[in-house]
Amino acid sequence: MKLLLINPNRTQAVTDAVLAAARSAARPGTELLAVTGRQGPAIIASRAENALAQQEVLELAAQHATEVDAIVLGVSLDSALWACRELFDVPVVGMTEAGLLMGATLAGRIGVLTYGARMAPLYRELVEQHGLAARLAGIETLEVTPQQTFETPLRVQEAVLCGIERLVQRDGAEAVLLAGAAMASMAPVLQPRASVPLLDGVACAVALAQARVDLALPAARAGSLAPLRGRDVTGITPALAARFRGAAA
Amino acid sequence: MKLLLINPNRTQAVTDAVLAAARSAARPGTELLAVTGRQGPAIIASRAENALAQQEVLELAAQHATEVDAIVLGVSLDSALWACRELFDVPVVGMTEAGLLMGATLAGRIGVLTYGARMAPLYRELVEQHGLAARLAGIETLEVTPQQTFETPLRVQEAVLCGIERLVQRDGAEAVLLAGAAMASMAPVLQPRASVPLLDGVACAVALAQARVDLALPAARAGSLAPLRGRDVTGITPALAARFRGAAA
Amino acid sequence: MKLLLINPNRTQAVTDAVLAAARSAARPGTELLAVTGRQGPAIIASRAENALAQQEVLELAAQHATEVDAIVLGVSLDSALWACRELFDVPVVGMTEAGLLMGATLAGRIGVLTYGARMAPLYRELVEQHGLAARLAGIETLEVTPQQTFETPLRVQEAVLCGIERLVQRDGAEAVLLAGAAMASMAPVLQPRASVPLLDGVACAVALAQARVDLALPAARAGSLAPLRGRDVTGITPALAARFRGAAA
Amino acid sequence: MKLLLINPNRTQAVTDAVLAAARSAARPGTELLAVTGRQGPAIIASRAENALAQQEVLELAAQHATEVDAIVLGVSLDSALWACRELFDVPVVGMTEAGLLMGATLAGRIGVLTYGARMAPLYRELVEQHGLAARLAGIETLEVTPQQTFETPLRVQEAVLCGIERLVQRDGAEAVLLAGAAMASMAPVLQPRASVPLLDGVACAVALAQARVDLALPAARAGSLAPLRGRDVTGITPALAARFRGAAA
Amino acid sequence: MKLLLINPNRTQAVTDAVLAAARSAARPGTELLAVTGRQGPAIIASRAENALAQQEVLELAAQHATEVDAIVLGVSLDSALWACRELFDVPVVGMTEAGLLMGATLAGRIGVLTYGARMAPLYRELVEQHGLAARLAGIETLEVTPQQTFETPLRVQEAVLCGIERLVQRDGAEAVLLAGAAMASMAPVLQPRASVPLLDGVACAVALAQARVDLALPAARAGSLAPLRGRDVTGITPALAARFRGAAA
Amino acid sequence: MKLLLINPNRTQAVTDAVLAAARSAARPGTELLAVTGRQGPAIIASRAENALAQQEVLELAAQHATEVDAIVLGVSLDSALWACRELFDVPVVGMTEAGLLMGATLAGRIGVLTYGARMAPLYRELVEQHGLAARLAGIETLEVTPQQTFETPLRVQEAVLCGIERLVQRDGAEAVLLAGAAMASMAPVLQPRASVPLLDGVACAVALAQARVDLALPAARAGSLAPLRGRDVTGITPALAARFRGAAA
Repeated sequence: MKLLLINPNRTQAVTDAVLAAARSAARPGTELLAVTGRQGPAIIASRAENALAQQEVLELAAQHATEVDAIVLGVSLDSALWACRELFDVPVVGMTEAGLLMGATLAGRIGVLTYGARMAPLYRELVEQHGLAARLAGIETLEVTPQQTFETPLRVQEAVLCGIERLVQRDGAEAVLLAGAAMASMAPVLQPRASVPLLDGVACAVALAQARVDLALPAARAGSLAPLRGRDVTGITPALAARFRGAAA
Repeated sequence: MKLLLINPNRTQAVTDAVLAAARSAARPGTELLAVTGRQGPAIIASRAENALAQQEVLELAAQHATEVDAIVLGVSLDSALWACRELFDVPVVGMTEAGLLMGATLAGRIGVLTYGARMAPLYRELVEQHGLAARLAGIETLEVTPQQTFETPLRVQEAVLCGIERLVQRDGAEAVLLAGAAMASMAPVLQPRASVPLLDGVACAVALAQARVDLALPAARAGSLAPLRGRDVTGITPALAARFRGAAA
Repeated sequence: MKLLLINPNRTQAVTDAVLAAARSAARPGTELLAVTGRQGPAIIASRAENALAQQEVLELAAQHATEVDAIVLGVSLDSALWACRELFDVPVVGMTEAGLLMGATLAGRIGVLTYGARMAPLYRELVEQHGLAARLAGIETLEVTPQQTFETPLRVQEAVLCGIERLVQRDGAEAVLLAGAAMASMAPVLQPRASVPLLDGVACAVALAQARVDLALPAARAGSLAPLRGRDVTGITPALAARFRGAAA
Repeated sequence: MKLLLINPNRTQAVTDAVLAAARSAARPGTELLAVTGRQGPAIIASRAENALAQQEVLELAAQHATEVDAIVLGVSLDSALWACRELFDVPVVGMTEAGLLMGATLAGRIGVLTYGARMAPLYRELVEQHGLAARLAGIETLEVTPQQTFETPLRVQEAVLCGIERLVQRDGAEAVLLAGAAMASMAPVLQPRASVPLLDGVACAVALAQARVDLALPAARAGSLAPLRGRDVTGITPALAARFRGAAA
Repeated sequence: MKLLLINPNRTQAVTDAVLAAARSAARPGTELLAVTGRQGPAIIASRAENALAQQEVLELAAQHATEVDAIVLGVSLDSALWACRELFDVPVVGMTEAGLLMGATLAGRIGVLTYGARMAPLYRELVEQHGLAARLAGIETLEVTPQQTFETPLRVQEAVLCGIERLVQRDGAEAVLLAGAAMASMAPVLQPRASVPLLDGVACAVALAQARVDLALPAARAGSLAPLRGRDVTGITPALAARFRGAAA
Repeated sequence: MKLLLINPNRTQAVTDAVLAAARSAARPGTELLAVTGRQGPAIIASRAENALAQQEVLELAAQHATEVDAIVLGVSLDSALWACRELFDVPVVGMTEAGLLMGATLAGRIGVLTYGARMAPLYRELVEQHGLAARLAGIETLEVTPQQTFETPLRVQEAVLCGIERLVQRDGAEAVLLAGAAMASMAPVLQPRASVPLLDGVACAVALAQARVDLALPAARAGSLAPLRGRDVTGITPALAARFRGAAA
């Protein structure tokens, strides 16, 4: 099967990290197509950048949806996740969603570790929107930037380990999700030194997307995710506009 | 004072209805500047259209923010509301948010009436995201389109009255929010025939925006709404890009 | 327009502080009538004092309701708020309610700062009763008395600033409500030294009451707030008894 | 032991019904002292009447607290329950609280049946304030008045049975609380015709009060229920004022 | 009346502690029959031991149900509580359930103190399953084992007192439940040194069971607790199998 | 890889249905080992039968855990799920849990359809225990028995389709979980006639178990799921007792 990995921000290093993490969970026959945002935020790390990223997610999905069996959103705020589910009939899985759902099969409550104090409310809100607040142990933020992950990885790793132990000791986390696409691939490196399972959102999303493809469930014909028909939208590519008209390729 | 009313969809009739409703709550000295989306959805009535509308909200706000004292979002899904609060230092008020908050001062639980069964989950999720689920009596949807409101207003009004009474009798609503920008201005017409107060989101938002201007509260310097600095975003107008760089006009 | 400010406790200094805070949010044409409890608690700072204050709130409201366009409760436990809404057809706004609702338009989660550890559960319960628990960051209490606010204001202000920062750093508060009528007017003084907006409940309530008057919403004719008819109550003034009989002046 | 039963409204027939229900659960050695409100509402059936009843509850409790081992509030809105717990060191139990707590030992979710549609929100709010919303199956209201219970008991009983079955069938209630002091004593009469246990709040409160006396738990010395000291309150009897000063008899 | 106390684990010292605590709340005419698990875990202190204990609870109950007026589960995870309520028509009360319900009549929020960090999630889940999460202040665990309670009681008592004060100061607990059958009987010893009431689950359960017997409520004939009929179960004693067939002795 | 399917009840027809459903989601290289309860309930359809089934789940798991890569519980109440996670270091997935988690990737809210009105509370409680109540649209029960599914399949299928549409129309379900092991395999048959995706718990569990094996996450070394050491349990097989002693094969 073939999976589309969408990194809607403009940083290729993030796409590379996402792709590496994805490979760790891809089955032998699974092909991965990773795409990077062409415009919009360099890194998505605020409410406004997340708002802007929605369109690029939809455009990248529209461009490639007919070539793939499922879509994985390699952006840790799961940007435009449900809009994709409305527009596209292949399975769509978000990386933070996937980390939480997969984590729910091995931990009572899950800790979330991410970059920057200003992001904590966004992850809390995201977990609540996924209806999974009851499974959240707590959120811990690092005072390092995603960029530093690539520049001084060893220093960031020590900070990440400290954050993990705070989530375990203070909040009772029984697994920890490393949230933030720039943390992709860090889980297997740190796992031996952590007392609870570390969840890589991208790997979880790939595993879950493969599971969804195996199940071959149909798209809804009723409710808020039923296909759109005859919607008139401008300022987007023809491929995306066709989705709104209900004329998917 | 001067308020900016943003209708991010491309339908001028909606802007007109929003503006009329806004005038009913504007104080003598309040000037209203209503703007309409130039690209994107003709009408926002799905998850994907809402995702696309975010950028147009931010662009319209960036274009006019320095001219006004506050911003009112005339889109009933409160699209990009918190992104605006992050980017702009004037008060920003969403119309559904405002209807719920104002309704909370006169009703225990509030009913929400809107167009189309597929929209019910979106309003439920919006109320939950506002943290106001405890004040929601229920949601009732009409099987008419926003367009029909302009074409056969009397028929739509009867359907709206039936929906209101169902919310009162079945769900115990003590006030009803007419949600959907196309319903703007309908509340005063139907109020004499309704047993509970009818809330017009736009009027509530204008009243609340004026109250916020009166209070002259500063913007946050900490947390998820603190001003952005040095963010690198492309594909947007210079006015909006300046907000991301922290170089607001 | 004319607003009634009810301070149901017997401390004139609290009424003075409430009135000063109210003036800061009153529009040019708004007249303020502030009244003080004639019997009952000197200060309301316990469950039992709050229970006793209910009748005085209703009596003061009944005495003046026909002269005013709206009522503001200048008591931070919002005592008898919903009873007033049932009895009187003018808008009624509580100061803590107003602080939370107005705060909801500028902060994801709001911190509450007040006097005395024994009051923390009462504010938590009040926020829950308003259905706004999802918007509460946390509660911090000061080990000073309302009286000390008037006696040693500078010392109290330093304690208040410490409490604000704890709410911001520990609980992620993006705005802080200074709860307790004796803290009225302190917000503008401390605002320059705080990293998030400070909410003065009385100012917010005046702003919200003015907004409610602008909207001219009718009273409910159905539900738990519909007018009372023919209720037989003794031990109260004729003005209040008339409200229970449904014969409002 | 000796229990005080407080009916704060002025209707002796309600006191009589409450006392009869209390006797059904009183153990051989338990003496019952039932008192009736001397002023305030004839019947408590609105938010404002409930607000006014608080003072009479406290006055009646203060007058008799030193003579009894525990206090039972024979008013179905549990008026002034927590204020009593703050002021008095004997156990205090509310009838609706008791019905819910006792019901929690025999039913997953409990239905509440009461008089008048306008009361449904008050009971819902009361259950939420008790933190027991998760155990509430639903609320059903009768379109009869408390007075009719005494005038046409057979007709009211049929309506009550219909309400019980709706709660069982529609809401999955596994027990039903007959809420409203005027329904006291109806449970044993209707039990043979009901498919689930019927809870009489007064009987449950007496049983629970006796259990509390058996346990001989001390009053709190910390928190929101710690004894008051030196509070200055006017307009109340000396016996009640002494409680606020911390000089309990 | 006669009460059955079931300690499903195989440690007689726990049964002895449970029985002693039970005696403190038993009324003069109440007879107590305490039974101990014959197989299964020596001590129940994990999810898997709790799973295994369910059958022994049911077997011990089936063996003695016809001799007693009510059943008290002397196991702090309330193992098989609702299964017992389905199978047996006498009142069944769990010790942690009882501690929480009784605590709800004297404290806003209750702290839970127990053995071992790994048990904290199990108690949190149990409180949530009882629908009482809103009344939980917090959970504190001791790094001592149940066995040490019997071996070095004075040292354990000091640790318990520290835990109690943390729950009061940090979490605002207004009462503390000493959870864990091995802590039975410790409450009266430590009460004089604690600032809030200490709840002994077994004593509360005995008091509540006596109250249930006084109320003489019938078993449900509808819902998830209605009697079973014709269920075919093997591998259990004839007395228990009879319960599943609906042929109770 | 090799998966163990545990059907803890004694009905081979249920095991056969579970196995058929499992095959539909098994990947080419996945081997399935299905085992059936040897003692305990013939069918698990009550609280007490579920309590008894726990031990058989653990015994069957202990007997085969060393031969397999993951365990799937083919019992719709997810009996002993977390006890298994504590005892065994391979992934363990419950069928209702899996249906809900997988459903969360394609539907806002999920409806649950099952046998018998008495089971509705058990499924509601199970969804709540999984922390997924926010994703539950509603529960609908059929008045047919699991046995009738095998005897009169066409009649049962029509009833199932009616139930599905009620969940969609009345409760807004965007997917429906067919809960009850006897409904395994019915989803693909009915899917063409349903307007929303139908979830087969067993198929979802197999897909999720395979995904968990792909991810190769370690077991926790901290928290409530950390391995047990030195626990003394009798009345179980040596293989299971070894797990409690921490001496896993």
